[in-house]
Amino acid sequence: MRILGIDPGIATVGFGVVDVEKSRQKLVTCGVITTPAKTPLSSRLDRIQRDLNELIAQVQPDVVAMEELFFNTNITTGISVAHGRGVLLLTCYQAGLPIYEYTPLQVKQAVVGYGRAEKKQVMDMVRRILNLKAAPKPDDAADAVAIALCHARSSTSLLTKETRFDPCSTT
Amino acid sequence: MRILGIDPGIATVGFGVVDVEKSRQKLVTCGVITTPAKTPLSSRLDRIQRDLNELIAQVQPDVVAMEELFFNTNITTGISVAHGRGVLLLTCYQAGLPIYEYTPLQVKQAVVGYGRAEKKQVMDMVRRILNLKAAPKPDDAADAVAIALCHARSSTSLLTKETRFDPCSTT
Repeated sequence: MRILGIDPGIATVGFGVVDVEKSRQKLVTCGVITTPAKTPLSSRLDRIQRDLNELIAQVQPDVVAMEELFFNTNITTGISVAHGRGVLLLTCYQAGLPIYEYTPLQVKQAVVGYGRAEKKQVMDMVRRILNLKAAPKPDDAADAVAIALCHARSSTSLLTKETRFDPCSTT
Repeated sequence: MRILGIDPGIATVGFGVVDVEKSRQKLVTCGVITTPAKTPLSSRLDRIQRDLNELIAQVQPDVVAMEELFFNTNITTGISVAHGRGVLLLTCYQAGLPIYEYTPLQVKQAVVGYGRAEKKQVMDMVRRILNLKAAPKPDDAADAVAIALCHARSSTSLLTKETRFDPCSTT
């Protein structure tokens, strides 16, 4: 099973592709889609869709794991990111991919085993799980890899049923 | 000039099409795009895009006027509507339409002449400007017509320059 993890955004969309075979997880690729500042939002959304479609065509994922939005800080940023997330969801849906959504807390819980883990702990566990020398860079790419791993570690035994699984409900 | 006004949403997207010739504005059509509740957000976004594309093909607008999001109430609703607005912006951009954005305050200012006008006053002015027997129904459609009128009344003299015009800056 090949999982495309997505960390939504407007200026920067993180992506991480992870292959899962039995209990083993392997990093295929990761990176970011970026859009130029000072261009209209509509044009940035178009760029995000085109780049994501190209990525999907290249890596041929079986499933998408996308982070849910959670805001305790800047509402303006949140609204802007939600515009991008709408286009990301649409694009994955139109590519025929099943979409699973996870909260930041669920990602930390699945990757570190502790929902309030710090970013550094998540990055360190991503590195260890995937046998990497260093955590992926930039941070948005690493976050997307963590989201893909969250799905891998939450769902491997359940995916055949296409059941959405909440890792937090098992703790 | 034919203006497509859009009031963004997820469950209900309002649209209103207004023709402008010199200082005269005429209602062409208005209505709502609706998406079924209890279906995944990605599928609702797809429905919104398909229905909007169909509408654009039918009415062939020259320009789109879309309301900006303004939240002083429910952040969860705001995030959800922003997902839909992202897809609406993308769809209009990909249809090659110029997009103009107006705040609710700008719409009221342009239609009623007073930025803090109540909804009823806006509806009444929409009815009067377009020589209708009653304000359009449902409310989301009427709101979209008001947004189209805002653009008509803000920009008729300026559109040849394709300048974005802020009606509030002139008062």
